[in-house]
Amino acid sequence: MRAVVLQEPGRITIEDVPRPGKPGSGEVRIAMHTVGICGSDVHYFTHGAIGDFVLEAPMVLGHEGSGTVISVGEGVEHLAPGDRVCMEPGIPDARSRAAREGMYNVDPAVRFWATPPYDGCLAEEVVHPAEYTYALPDSLSFAEGALIEPFAVGMQAATKARLRPGDIAAVVGCGTIGIMTAIAALNGGASRVYVSDLAPEKLALIDGISGLIPVNASREDLGERVRQDTGGWGPQAVFEASGAAGSYESIWDVPAPGGVLVVVGMPARPVSFDTTKAQVRELRIETVFRYANVYQKAVDLAAGEGVDLGRFVTQTFPVSDAVAVFERGAQGRPTDIKLQLTFADVAAG
Amino acid sequence: MRAVVLQEPGRITIEDVPRPGKPGSGEVRIAMHTVGICGSDVHYFTHGAIGDFVLEAPMVLGHEGSGTVISVGEGVEHLAPGDRVCMEPGIPDARSRAAREGMYNVDPAVRFWATPPYDGCLAEEVVHPAEYTYALPDSLSFAEGALIEPFAVGMQAATKARLRPGDIAAVVGCGTIGIMTAIAALNGGASRVYVSDLAPEKLALIDGISGLIPVNASREDLGERVRQDTGGWGPQAVFEASGAAGSYESIWDVPAPGGVLVVVGMPARPVSFDTTKAQVRELRIETVFRYANVYQKAVDLAAGEGVDLGRFVTQTFPVSDAVAVFERGAQGRPTDIKLQLTFADVAAG
Amino acid sequence: MRAVVLQEPGRITIEDVPRPGKPGSGEVRIAMHTVGICGSDVHYFTHGAIGDFVLEAPMVLGHEGSGTVISVGEGVEHLAPGDRVCMEPGIPDARSRAAREGMYNVDPAVRFWATPPYDGCLAEEVVHPAEYTYALPDSLSFAEGALIEPFAVGMQAATKARLRPGDIAAVVGCGTIGIMTAIAALNGGASRVYVSDLAPEKLALIDGISGLIPVNASREDLGERVRQDTGGWGPQAVFEASGAAGSYESIWDVPAPGGVLVVVGMPARPVSFDTTKAQVRELRIETVFRYANVYQKAVDLAAGEGVDLGRFVTQTFPVSDAVAVFERGAQGRPTDIKLQLTFADVAAG
Amino acid sequence: MRAVVLQEPGRITIEDVPRPGKPGSGEVRIAMHTVGICGSDVHYFTHGAIGDFVLEAPMVLGHEGSGTVISVGEGVEHLAPGDRVCMEPGIPDARSRAAREGMYNVDPAVRFWATPPYDGCLAEEVVHPAEYTYALPDSLSFAEGALIEPFAVGMQAATKARLRPGDIAAVVGCGTIGIMTAIAALNGGASRVYVSDLAPEKLALIDGISGLIPVNASREDLGERVRQDTGGWGPQAVFEASGAAGSYESIWDVPAPGGVLVVVGMPARPVSFDTTKAQVRELRIETVFRYANVYQKAVDLAAGEGVDLGRFVTQTFPVSDAVAVFERGAQGRPTDIKLQLTFADVAAG
Repeated sequence: MRAVVLQEPGRITIEDVPRPGKPGSGEVRIAMHTVGICGSDVHYFTHGAIGDFVLEAPMVLGHEGSGTVISVGEGVEHLAPGDRVCMEPGIPDARSRAAREGMYNVDPAVRFWATPPYDGCLAEEVVHPAEYTYALPDSLSFAEGALIEPFAVGMQAATKARLRPGDIAAVVGCGTIGIMTAIAALNGGASRVYVSDLAPEKLALIDGISGLIPVNASREDLGERVRQDTGGWGPQAVFEASGAAGSYESIWDVPAPGGVLVVVGMPARPVSFDTTKAQVRELRIETVFRYANVYQKAVDLAAGEGVDLGRFVTQTFPVSDAVAVFERGAQGRPTDIKLQLTFADVAAG
Repeated sequence: MRAVVLQEPGRITIEDVPRPGKPGSGEVRIAMHTVGICGSDVHYFTHGAIGDFVLEAPMVLGHEGSGTVISVGEGVEHLAPGDRVCMEPGIPDARSRAAREGMYNVDPAVRFWATPPYDGCLAEEVVHPAEYTYALPDSLSFAEGALIEPFAVGMQAATKARLRPGDIAAVVGCGTIGIMTAIAALNGGASRVYVSDLAPEKLALIDGISGLIPVNASREDLGERVRQDTGGWGPQAVFEASGAAGSYESIWDVPAPGGVLVVVGMPARPVSFDTTKAQVRELRIETVFRYANVYQKAVDLAAGEGVDLGRFVTQTFPVSDAVAVFERGAQGRPTDIKLQLTFADVAAG
Repeated sequence: MRAVVLQEPGRITIEDVPRPGKPGSGEVRIAMHTVGICGSDVHYFTHGAIGDFVLEAPMVLGHEGSGTVISVGEGVEHLAPGDRVCMEPGIPDARSRAAREGMYNVDPAVRFWATPPYDGCLAEEVVHPAEYTYALPDSLSFAEGALIEPFAVGMQAATKARLRPGDIAAVVGCGTIGIMTAIAALNGGASRVYVSDLAPEKLALIDGISGLIPVNASREDLGERVRQDTGGWGPQAVFEASGAAGSYESIWDVPAPGGVLVVVGMPARPVSFDTTKAQVRELRIETVFRYANVYQKAVDLAAGEGVDLGRFVTQTFPVSDAVAVFERGAQGRPTDIKLQLTFADVAAG
Repeated sequence: MRAVVLQEPGRITIEDVPRPGKPGSGEVRIAMHTVGICGSDVHYFTHGAIGDFVLEAPMVLGHEGSGTVISVGEGVEHLAPGDRVCMEPGIPDARSRAAREGMYNVDPAVRFWATPPYDGCLAEEVVHPAEYTYALPDSLSFAEGALIEPFAVGMQAATKARLRPGDIAAVVGCGTIGIMTAIAALNGGASRVYVSDLAPEKLALIDGISGLIPVNASREDLGERVRQDTGGWGPQAVFEASGAAGSYESIWDVPAPGGVLVVVGMPARPVSFDTTKAQVRELRIETVFRYANVYQKAVDLAAGEGVDLGRFVTQTFPVSDAVAVFERGAQGRPTDIKLQLTFADVAAG
């Protein structure tokens, strides 16, 4: 079967690889339909490594996937052939201490799609544990199904913020993760979410979404703006989703007294922590690493009428264009929120 | 000025009463516009008492109010004459231990509108502490402003449930409080909310609200229905909002494992607690008494495009009809979700 | 090897049963040293069933055990032959949804020692998963190791109470579980713990333990007593550990405003829930079912100088006396806090 | 009456100042007995300012005080003349938003003893709000009463950590605040607390306190040490109490997965935040600013048999020696954990 393989940094090929075997007990076999390109996929393509994870052998890319169940292994009851599904890309050791305590995402032994040395899902078929495979309701397209993965990051962030109903939230950064976080926060309890960015063309992406308020950071200060709208109090929850280290130079006086700062983006180097500013407000800071126990909730929330993830799919290409699409991804065009590849023609043919 | 006064059980009159004095430091004077009739107002009308609170002297009724600021006392900065507002009806002793710990609603010394011996707000004018008076955004009508009070009960319930984004919720009882709770839960983080009632005409009131799923309790079991839709798991949060003691005969196996039951309605007598059923799921039970620190959040959430509180105002009458309206309230018509009285004609003239 | 087998209700024998096989991957083989007799063991002996769990075939009794590791299976790193250990008696399905969310104790598929149809640990040897086997520090005896199981119930209760440092706590019932809960609460953050019981001889068991205050419930009201000592406020956490349904007739006004009631004991029938009393204080109610993720913490806390679990071992008998000891257990002498059986002579011989 | 007055940076005098007036409604008048010297008092003495708080007029020093009630104002019921008491030194605006939400410590309007422009308690008498005045049980001396203030900081830290019973904790820094935090954590739920410092003479101060484990940071790494003792897991809660910016270079991999870092000390400049290390463990970070709603709990916990705050009073001097004592304080001798001044001779005479 065909798969999109990162041979070495800078070189992607579409290869014939062996089809996975029959699904074992508790597993399902899935025909992939759509796979989104994530910043991490692109980073492995351009740099061959992220932190301690280094590409040492060819690896199938992709971890944002949706598809259709082909067959199910023994003991699988909640899925059947023909079901449209999306998949949580990390498989932890269920018996690890972290997993036992309900935090399987921080289990160091987790095997995560397209994180060396584990293959990803940019292949015609995958076999996956049934308990990490989620049925898509009719109201969600395959494209949206493949977006559940970045949306789950936003859901994890909104969950860790412990939003109370009606809280005011703010998100720094209007890229994919910033937008996903803003939507998760808005539908996860916030009454409105201010989203700041320096690039007006990125802020334009959320234009007209009721409850999301774009803030052009080159023209107004996020903290001042929210305080002005809230009688001087500020947002109860602030999400840093740009991953820019510089963001931490000015973020510490944005949250309201007793508020929370959620670290969603992953800066490349240590950032500045103004403990005094944090202490006089007794801020809480939460950090996010992927997600745990939110995937089903992400599907449920995305299926609601008020959420339209599909509008953030910038463009969809056939898998045969994978090399060109990764090159475009490497250019980092600010409004390429989400590029996706699809096997649909394959499935159709 | 005119006020609606409960003289004794069963007898309401519209009286001339003295206008309140000038607002003191930190207070505002408000011209009332709209006042909703609450079940507790009706209960004082019909019975003269609720629990330990007994009518011993004539009392102005009403605690669900909205109006317009006429003048402000010293030190009031966030409000000005002309501001449209709604008011939190309970004034605690800010220096009590409960208030210091952030739970001013359980301070026994709280003075609450239309709870003997304190007068309510069914009068042309009231003077109220500025910090319990909230500006209404343009998108909220006076009718909706007067509905913030019961909505705040739902907000308190949703807050205490500690909903996580995307949770599935269920509400028992589709009366005013049940509906307000369902809307608070839905917009406070739940992906969808099942609302059960025996009366189809009550369930019809939420028809067509995306995310609210009516369940006719005479035809299907709430727990079974939700488990069926959630792979056997059930709702993470269940709100008992009917106040019927009988509801507790069947509610203990509705919540999902590790879920929460929120006691919103106030049964007249002790109910049945099936500890074994609660324990095998390790349920948490939360109880709600009015609200604390949610009013501003209720206003913010109600102002959102997705929330339309106004549709639940069944009918509006001039204050001059107060006696007849209370008599209608005493009949308890199932679809009289919210009757309101308005001074608007007075204000206009 | 010898094992204590419940043949049918009322009939226990000491039998020769097959020795368990070699420990598999992730398992350890343990020579049992001490096993405590729990009320549930006795109840299976006298009634043959607890709720839905019915004895349908002979079953080895016992689930409160300690012993010595004989050999370890593949992949076991934290234990080695010769290690003194205690064992968590329930083994969940690590891939169940409950387990994934960190609540493996409420997984319905859990296999629990001496809960039909699973054999317990009153046998010379057992094979157990290493991740549910805990090394005993030198400061804990085998007798104390076998007490970790009921102490873990108290730990789960104290954990779910979410005690804040210095909180005042109260425990209803001075039996094994009441005492274990009181010690867990005291060492888990409370500044002092009031323990009430009707039987003075039970209260005598905690005499002289600094921080535990006995309250003779036949002479003084628990709630009044604590309010008197706390300026009228009451205890922030109340633990119901008697399991008596009658206890719920008077417990609802014991906790302080905003406090918590933890349901530890398991009444045989639904109890009375005074929602009004709970609501005016906005009480939280937590329920406890065994324990999850507290065993290591229980060992760590029990190892502290301030905790002396050993004093609650009433008497220790050789396993050969098992039949007589179960008969004594069935008499329910109030001061028989904990009877234990030991294989020590066997091991020695 | 006599008072210790900071005239300007570097110059303290003992002055005759007017005695405070009669206690007003809700107030008490207190004869001061003992006042501890805090690092902040010394800092105002040496620098004349802390952050935005600048000495602009002579100010009475001292905020760690205990004494005896002389008289009480109207409405004071829980205190009477002769009561031995300690006092919470910050008085918030009870009607501020922060106070209403239960976080009166972050109210910017709080008036705090010996924080310009407010006088402190190093005077023969003070008048104080009764609700911030706490009776000392017989088991606490005046010296210990005056230590409740720094202990309350540790209590706030332990509370915000949300310790679960039996957690393993670690404290960086064995100065006054580090020790107070370690004791609060140990008695607030932790099973044991590792305390690290570079100075062996400081670690010697906690020698022999069961449950506190000194770690010489010049010889062993705190994180490695705790992981070694906990099967590689690490401490669930880590408290940074040294206030040294350099501490943040190495602290991010100390907490266990899912653990918390509590920022107690106040570094003079922004510190380094290694978000990646925090994210892969999904650490939570809490920050502490003084305390709220913990003073009574601090008294209750300190009164327990297991806590001996008194051992940390290094030396006690008569108030007449105040100038010399502040000069000694300015030298910052590492083992001068707590110097106290006493008016006792005055009271006696």
